[in-house]
Amino acid sequence: MTEVIPHWLSKQADVSPKKVAIELENGDTISFSKLCILSMSFARKLSTAGVKKAEHVAILSNNHLDMVVAIHALSYLEAVCVMLNTRLTASELTDQIVRADVTCLLISEKIQIEKGLDFAFQHNFSEVNKLKENKVALATEIDLTAPFTMMYTSGTTGLPKAVVHTYGNHWWSAIGSLLNLGHEENDKWLLTLPMFHVGGLSILIRSVIYGMSVLLLEKYDRKKLPELIKERKITIASLVTLMLEQLLEDLEGKNRLHSLRCILLGGGAVPKVLLQKAKQKQIPLLQSYGMTETSSQIVTLSSDIALNKQGTSGKALFPAQVKIEQGTTDGVGEIFVKGPMVFKGYYKNDQANEESFVNGWFQTGDLGYLDDDGFLYVVDRRTDLIVSGGENIYPSEIEHILVGMEGISEAVVVGMPDERWGSVPVAYIVRDNEKVDGKTILEYLEDKLASYKIPRKVFFKKELPRNASNKVMRHQLVNKEL
Amino acid sequence: MTEVIPHWLSKQADVSPKKVAIELENGDTISFSKLCILSMSFARKLSTAGVKKAEHVAILSNNHLDMVVAIHALSYLEAVCVMLNTRLTASELTDQIVRADVTCLLISEKIQIEKGLDFAFQHNFSEVNKLKENKVALATEIDLTAPFTMMYTSGTTGLPKAVVHTYGNHWWSAIGSLLNLGHEENDKWLLTLPMFHVGGLSILIRSVIYGMSVLLLEKYDRKKLPELIKERKITIASLVTLMLEQLLEDLEGKNRLHSLRCILLGGGAVPKVLLQKAKQKQIPLLQSYGMTETSSQIVTLSSDIALNKQGTSGKALFPAQVKIEQGTTDGVGEIFVKGPMVFKGYYKNDQANEESFVNGWFQTGDLGYLDDDGFLYVVDRRTDLIVSGGENIYPSEIEHILVGMEGISEAVVVGMPDERWGSVPVAYIVRDNEKVDGKTILEYLEDKLASYKIPRKVFFKKELPRNASNKVMRHQLVNKEL
Repeated sequence: MTEVIPHWLSKQADVSPKKVAIELENGDTISFSKLCILSMSFARKLSTAGVKKAEHVAILSNNHLDMVVAIHALSYLEAVCVMLNTRLTASELTDQIVRADVTCLLISEKIQIEKGLDFAFQHNFSEVNKLKENKVALATEIDLTAPFTMMYTSGTTGLPKAVVHTYGNHWWSAIGSLLNLGHEENDKWLLTLPMFHVGGLSILIRSVIYGMSVLLLEKYDRKKLPELIKERKITIASLVTLMLEQLLEDLEGKNRLHSLRCILLGGGAVPKVLLQKAKQKQIPLLQSYGMTETSSQIVTLSSDIALNKQGTSGKALFPAQVKIEQGTTDGVGEIFVKGPMVFKGYYKNDQANEESFVNGWFQTGDLGYLDDDGFLYVVDRRTDLIVSGGENIYPSEIEHILVGMEGISEAVVVGMPDERWGSVPVAYIVRDNEKVDGKTILEYLEDKLASYKIPRKVFFKKELPRNASNKVMRHQLVNKEL
Repeated sequence: MTEVIPHWLSKQADVSPKKVAIELENGDTISFSKLCILSMSFARKLSTAGVKKAEHVAILSNNHLDMVVAIHALSYLEAVCVMLNTRLTASELTDQIVRADVTCLLISEKIQIEKGLDFAFQHNFSEVNKLKENKVALATEIDLTAPFTMMYTSGTTGLPKAVVHTYGNHWWSAIGSLLNLGHEENDKWLLTLPMFHVGGLSILIRSVIYGMSVLLLEKYDRKKLPELIKERKITIASLVTLMLEQLLEDLEGKNRLHSLRCILLGGGAVPKVLLQKAKQKQIPLLQSYGMTETSSQIVTLSSDIALNKQGTSGKALFPAQVKIEQGTTDGVGEIFVKGPMVFKGYYKNDQANEESFVNGWFQTGDLGYLDDDGFLYVVDRRTDLIVSGGENIYPSEIEHILVGMEGISEAVVVGMPDERWGSVPVAYIVRDNEKVDGKTILEYLEDKLASYKIPRKVFFKKELPRNASNKVMRHQLVNKEL
């Protein structure tokens, strides 16, 4: 059954016109009313540029008001936003643009110059802003079953896949979080995670649904963070482990950030030392668990439990469910999730869609267990996933490119512990040509992979350790060499 | 698209096991964990009594813990609750039971004796409680598109119609209210409206979705209300106009009820005097507008506006829309509403369903206008609707019975202003037999209509005033005689 609601930005502009929607680092504020006017205007200009309903329009930008306006504008045109990661190389970006059937690319001026993408239909934000407004009818309603955003993520094999989020996925994600964390009148959510990832974008969606202010930072800056939280009276912040580590280091003594009512921490297992440090410094930390496919957090600790239970990601949000399958004797098994914030499928990838769902449950590939009270402990993200400073690195993607190089017959990439980034990728290679060495491999990868994905070390092996079913035993590799 | 969520009571029992779900007048409290256990047990006993999935089970009770447990138990069995009004006569009840295809009636002991219904499959709560538990699989999930409750209401013509509420209707109603009023940790909602009406039932649903305590009163008692609000620290109360009037009379001076953060007032246009009195006594009043078909409130004032704007019902809740059609020059016209809390249709009544919806908008029949800021002012409930002490009286239902009496050829019922009840019904009758008089009419109606529906006065007329299209001009009748 199709559920229809009024367009959320128009509605919020009607209900809370003067409330601050976006606060910028320079102190400027944009009300919901103003944001609605800007977004509608941008939509009419995009229409002049030829953007039509149901088209796929890519956005390539770091966090910026222009990006916020573009996202809302595309929803007014009922176009789909394909969110691209600015850290990717030109060849990675082109590949994603082609495979997502993108008809138009919106890009920031700076990144346009940097990337020099060979894609004809690209407009930077300033160019669009100079266009006249087309008298096009804008959406007054949102069909929750319609697709709104697409974001790339990778599976255990093959190339990155585009996760399609419906409006309903984002709506339910926001409502699930609301039923857990509540919403207070003075809430201001720190948005320093990139909006091209779901962790950042979901903050923007919550803002427009709750009528909540966000502090939008163009990029994460370690030095400024403690002062910004204090001075701007941030009440909620979404951080990745690396940011929390640095924040805790930079806070002297029990220098509590008084306005903060919680820090939401994504990204699976968190070192115990870090949890203890946060407790000492009276930082109200809520671990959470989620992924692109679940439209951000789907399992989150609640505030009343946070101080008594450390190391758990909590319980599934109110509209969601979590279960462990194929558990071993110690209860550890694969994490499955279900709920209306879980995506319905990858774009044009029937095979992956079939493999990902079992009786309506999404198979995350991550490992964890539930304690006697039903709290989830994430033991490890998918055995092969490398989380490096908040970015997910999928070995399969790097391996796919490595075996495409002449002289390499087999390649396996695994994560190596790293003090700063948590983990970094390293490669194990079986070559059939001795001329292939570390240097030639790095040269080969340079324009094909974002720098954070390039292996820090390359080990050459005669053969890779495999199990009975001929599957490479990744963990054994890591344990042996490092 | 079918959205599935975990069973809301099981989920709340998992998330907030110790939190008080229901507080009774005697001070006893029932936690969500306890309520879940009681409801599951009652479900298994109902299964022993033969209740099965998808069956229609009527509930006839005044507010009581037994009733709460029965409602949740039926959801665990995936049966549909047909909520019956305890003020109806045996013949009215029998009619509703038959027309709703009820297979089983759950009834309180007291009402069972009072009504003496001739319906074979009835069990009082104590009888069910004595049964053994059947080992039946209970629902672990809720399909939001499935029907959950049915309640009777009337249209402009014919007999009462059963409104079918899906789980989704109730869910969206609760979320719409949450996005307007918020939820605070210490919230305790007064439940004194009958749960067989949607205004009462919706409080119970909010409780289980938010994890919020309710104070459940078996019946409204004017004398106890101010003390109960104070002593039990009620933060939100849903009242009808009559109750508010009495509360304001009973509060001496500016005796503010400090715990109260708002009183939600349903039922359309409210006398200005009352609004002013509430302001003087610092009662935080939020007018709202809704009906059975919208699963309770769909338009509600927000707290920040309440003091500056009096007389308006506010704006449509976040997921909802309101518009005025066929407005006259002064902007007054018929109120249309749309949103996922609006029911999908009356039970087995294709004609009424076709007539009620225009392009997805529900035609309320009520009159109102929107001011320049988009706030709704309800000018009058449907021209023929009589609101008497919080109960809706539908003239068509009384007229239908009156013309069935021998000697009466035409009948029209309208509301007459009444100091205590707001409005009471009076009848205008054209008779073809002089033996028919006020006394014989009242005798005839006695066992056919609940006492509050019986006309207080009967006027005999030679003919009824009709307009060009032969429609009775009700307002002219009222103005001429009273």
